[in-house]
Amino acid sequence: MVPIVSIVGASNSGKTTFLEKLIPELVGRGYRVGAIKHDVHGFEMDREGKDTWKLKKAGAQTVSISSPSRIGSIRETEGELGLDEIAARYFWSEDILITEGFKRARFPKVEIFRSAIEPEPICGPADNLAALVTDDPLEVDVPRFSFADITGVADFIEERFLRGRRKRRALVQLDGKQLPMKDFVEDFVIGGIEGMLSSLRGWEKPKTITVHIRLEEDD
Amino acid sequence: MVPIVSIVGASNSGKTTFLEKLIPELVGRGYRVGAIKHDVHGFEMDREGKDTWKLKKAGAQTVSISSPSRIGSIRETEGELGLDEIAARYFWSEDILITEGFKRARFPKVEIFRSAIEPEPICGPADNLAALVTDDPLEVDVPRFSFADITGVADFIEERFLRGRRKRRALVQLDGKQLPMKDFVEDFVIGGIEGMLSSLRGWEKPKTITVHIRLEEDD
Repeated sequence: MVPIVSIVGASNSGKTTFLEKLIPELVGRGYRVGAIKHDVHGFEMDREGKDTWKLKKAGAQTVSISSPSRIGSIRETEGELGLDEIAARYFWSEDILITEGFKRARFPKVEIFRSAIEPEPICGPADNLAALVTDDPLEVDVPRFSFADITGVADFIEERFLRGRRKRRALVQLDGKQLPMKDFVEDFVIGGIEGMLSSLRGWEKPKTITVHIRLEEDD
Repeated sequence: MVPIVSIVGASNSGKTTFLEKLIPELVGRGYRVGAIKHDVHGFEMDREGKDTWKLKKAGAQTVSISSPSRIGSIRETEGELGLDEIAARYFWSEDILITEGFKRARFPKVEIFRSAIEPEPICGPADNLAALVTDDPLEVDVPRFSFADITGVADFIEERFLRGRRKRRALVQLDGKQLPMKDFVEDFVIGGIEGMLSSLRGWEKPKTITVHIRLEEDD
């Protein structure tokens, strides 16, 4: 799966502003970047009165709008989707996903910290903190970068998450829930599926394979 | 794959208004409905100044926003995605997809026709017209419904597209393009993947299986 790094921090610590600098830095290095924002309150992406809004209001569970240069989609969910599932469903060609928020997810975190906003970093020892961005003098066990050091943070992310990662990866979901697999099982699944499909007419070795199966509900 | 029906018609023929009645009728019959709107001009789903807008502007190819009850996503694309791909990527639990527009796609169409707007129906013989909705006296080879007869159109859609379709279905995409498969090949792929995965710890027979594989780019 694509690597995921979460930018976390207290409200008003400057996460979005930081991302507005970090994303172009990574894009400039040739990476395709995806971004996921966490919204605890519910959000309005659509505008009242627009056709997509009307179709949603009429009861469509998911509404998409497609144009020659972009596609948008809004789906009503029962409970929040996990980051794994969001990553697998909505991001199929990105090299890295940067999230704003998602402190509770298991992914590595870069915390934006200002002592003027919050007395201490919000990430504790169990939070998988990978780096801290702050201008405050603070002793931490992880790499520390100043707010101005976008290059340093991008170098860190590149070195830590974008190099040497396993290129062959499989994500299997049963009814949307990830099926955990050890590396050798993952290799077995990839080899089995690739082997089976490669015998079919129309096969040309792709970079990605996606399979959606709907099983009979009763048998 | 999920069945797709396109509601087409000239501009201002009343496609959206018709969908605002048809969708609740289908939802009321217990179907999960997805809607796809075609937009030739490019659209603004996001609002200037919002965080998602900022992240997009910073260069993220795809931006998603996740909340407890809904998820939204906007992706920049090179060229328009096909309806097959949109259906497979964005609609994973719907029973039927209704599109507004997409006259040029190959899916069956219900045309909304008013002679006051356009002299003749926009669908020709090659356009896979399945039904016509009009209050004008018009001889056609396909079922005809009045604007008021939402029940009739819903009956028609239910009978034609929602009954008796194969329940076990597999969609395989290589780099996003559908790999065509005959029925017996599809059964073989489903059986092979289900058989392989069912031997793994953590398997519980699901309704759907999704597999995403990223292959090595060089080997």
